[in-house]
Order: sequence, then C-alpha cells, then structure tokens
Amino acid sequence: MHKSTPPSRRRGRGAGRPGGDEPDLREALLDAAIARFVKVGIGAASLRSIATGAGVTPAMLHYYFGDKDRLVQAMIEERLLPALGQMEARLQSAGNDPAKLIEGFVRGIGDVISSHPWLPPLWVREVLCEGGALRAVMREQVAPRVPAVLAQRLAAAQAAGRMPADLDPRLLVMSLVGLTLFPAAGAPVWQKMFDVQTLQPDVMIAHALTLLSRGVQLDLGGRT
Amino acid sequence: MHKSTPPSRRRGRGAGRPGGDEPDLREALLDAAIARFVKVGIGAASLRSIATGAGVTPAMLHYYFGDKDRLVQAMIEERLLPALGQMEARLQSAGNDPAKLIEGFVRGIGDVISSHPWLPPLWVREVLCEGGALRAVMREQVAPRVPAVLAQRLAAAQAAGRMPADLDPRLLVMSLVGLTLFPAAGAPVWQKMFDVQTLQPDVMIAHALTLLSRGVQLDLGGRT
Repeated sequence: MHKSTPPSRRRGRGAGRPGGDEPDLREALLDAAIARFVKVGIGAASLRSIATGAGVTPAMLHYYFGDKDRLVQAMIEERLLPALGQMEARLQSAGNDPAKLIEGFVRGIGDVISSHPWLPPLWVREVLCEGGALRAVMREQVAPRVPAVLAQRLAAAQAAGRMPADLDPRLLVMSLVGLTLFPAAGAPVWQKMFDVQTLQPDVMIAHALTLLSRGVQLDLGGRT
Repeated sequence: MHKSTPPSRRRGRGAGRPGGDEPDLREALLDAAIARFVKVGIGAASLRSIATGAGVTPAMLHYYFGDKDRLVQAMIEERLLPALGQMEARLQSAGNDPAKLIEGFVRGIGDVISSHPWLPPLWVREVLCEGGALRAVMREQVAPRVPAVLAQRLAAAQAAGRMPADLDPRLLVMSLVGLTLFPAAGAPVWQKMFDVQTLQPDVMIAHALTLLSRGVQLDLGGRT
C-alpha cells in the first residue's frame, strides 16, 4: 500500500480516494475515527490517536481525509446523515397516521441503533453535552428533517382528533427520544445497575411501545 | 480575608473550614467547581480554572478543599448525595402504592432539578458519557438507594396485580429517567430545535405524568 500524496492537492468530496485505493481501508479508518470520537470526544481525538487505533500511520489517515475538520465532515456526511435518511424514509412511509408515525419512529431508531451502535454514545457526548461538537449539525441538518417533521405531523393528527389533545406533540417527540435513544446510550450504566448481562434492543423497543401505547394505566395526577 | 494555611495540615471531613472562616465562601467555591465540572468535565477542570471562575487564588481553593480529588469528594458528599436524600424521602413516603411511587419519583426529580439545575448536565457528562467520572458513584451510592428500591417496589406492586404485568419494572425506572432527567438535560437542544424560549420544568413534569398515565391511547403493536 502506498504512502500519502499531500492532501492539499486533493479537495472536495471524494478527496483522497482515487480509483486505485482500497475503499475498505477508508471505511476502516472512519470506523477507527468514530471509535475514538466516542471514547474521548471529537475535540480531544487527535489524528495520531485515530491512526494508532486503526494501525496505520498518521500520514495514511492524512492521505485519505486531509485534516481533522474534513475527517469529521466525512463522518457526518457518510455515516451520520445516511442514518438520518433511514429515519426519514420511515416517516415518509407512515404518512399521517399517528400510530404508524410513533411506531415507525420508535422502531426506526431501534434499527438505526442496531446498525450504528456508536450513535447513542456519540449523541450523548457531542449533542447532549454542553459544548458538544455536533450541536450545530443536530440543529441545522437533523432537526428539520426528522424531529420537526414528526412533531408537525403529530400536531396535524392531534388537530384532526386522532390523538389526545393534552399531549404537546413537541414534548411527545422529546419523550420518544427519551424512551429510545437515551436508554440505548445508558445501557452500560443500567446493565451494571440492575445486574443484567444485556438489555436487548428489541426488548427495549417493545417496552417503549407498550408504555407509549397505554402507559401504566394509573391515575398519576398529570393534569396541572 | 486571609490567605491559606497549607492544606497538608488539614485533613478529613471539615478540612480547611476552621470556625473563623466564611462558610459562604466555601459554598461559593463549590458552586464554581460545579460550574466548571459541567462546562468542561471533572477530568479536564483544573483547580486553577475553578479558582479563576470563583475570583479567588488557587491557594485559597487549596486551603478550603485540598487537592482536586477532595474537592470532587466534597461535591459528591455535600451536593450530590443530599439531592439523592430528597428522592429517598419521596419514595419512603410513597410506600407501596405504584401510582404514588411513580408520581413521587417524577415530581421528586422535577424538584431536585429545580433546586439543582447543574445536575442534569453533570449527569450527562459524568454518568452517561463513556468514561464518566461519576459512574462508580452512580453504581455504588445512587443506584442502591433510589432506582433499585423503586424497581423493587414496582415489582412488588406488579406481583400484587396493581400494575400491568407486561411492563418490566426495571425498564420502567429507566423510562422514568428518560422522561424526566433526560429532557431536562436536553432542554438547551430542544429549545433551539423547536424555537421555544423555555421548556418550563413544570410543563415537562405534567407532560411526563400524562404520558405515563395513559400513553397516547393508540395501538402501537408493542407486544412482540
């Protein structure tokens, strides 16, 4: 495998990936970058530590991605946004039926987590944490495409009398995330806390749907 | 205000707080430490940066708390665990009634968040994040006193036929956190996403109770 040509001569999409290169290596480098981002945070992850994690030289990483900003951008465009695309397709196929929208969102997040196990911890570190490096991406690229669309459709269903009137659709979307992405992110903590080996994703998804569907069927004095 | 006596001569509980000192300053220094822990993380917060945030010299901080480990320990013992005590008292007074337990937990977290607004972001950074500095405290000191107790009591209520049989009490406790502490931690993100000025804590608590009580009243195909 050859060593890098200076990345300054390679710009834009597809930079550093001439036809003769191994696409598998590029993907493996992205995997290594994501693993490092999850472990120490995007801000603290050095190109050198990512290269070490991938078993390549920093020059090789540089050759494929250029600088760190472009590596982060590649992760967003090639890994994060495609996952979002899966969710968008789910919402699309659910139309305006509130039950299908909610079930589709919950199962969709479950599928995305299964195929992108790095996503919940990265979301905690880079979106939920103050100063997270992906907050702007979340606000500008993710929010308008999925959570905002879901909230709008649920509001329309509510206006049509197809959903309880006392649940704010925006807070409901927040709750859906709190019942799916949050438990997945917290699974390592919960597993130790409750001394269980694994919290199977499908068990968590089924639980979320059961709870969302009917609640605990107790009068909890929620109305203020 | 005097400058520090070497902290090496002051050890154990109450170290660096002789009778003649100002207790308010000690509390203000703890506030500054917590603000810094929330902002950059416990691991990355230097005594110097905390002192700067409090407008005192590092020597003064050193005089009150000794080294950073002892400062973190003071934060845990004097701020974190008392908040936990509030939650324990709530559970105690709820007895074995599942509705009172769930409502007490949700409202209790709401109260704790109102009086300890630093708690949700600190929990995200130091418990939810991989490698968080408070994971051990969570597992050893928090979990047995509140989440585990709540899960046990809900399991007993379920066994007595007072709660739906198809909701795992442990997953229900996780869901309660996902509907309370998580939205509070994510509020800055949600506020920008949905373009609302504030997500009032009492509105979020009422929403959580309404959702928990009856769900969205739609068939979501939760049972696998």
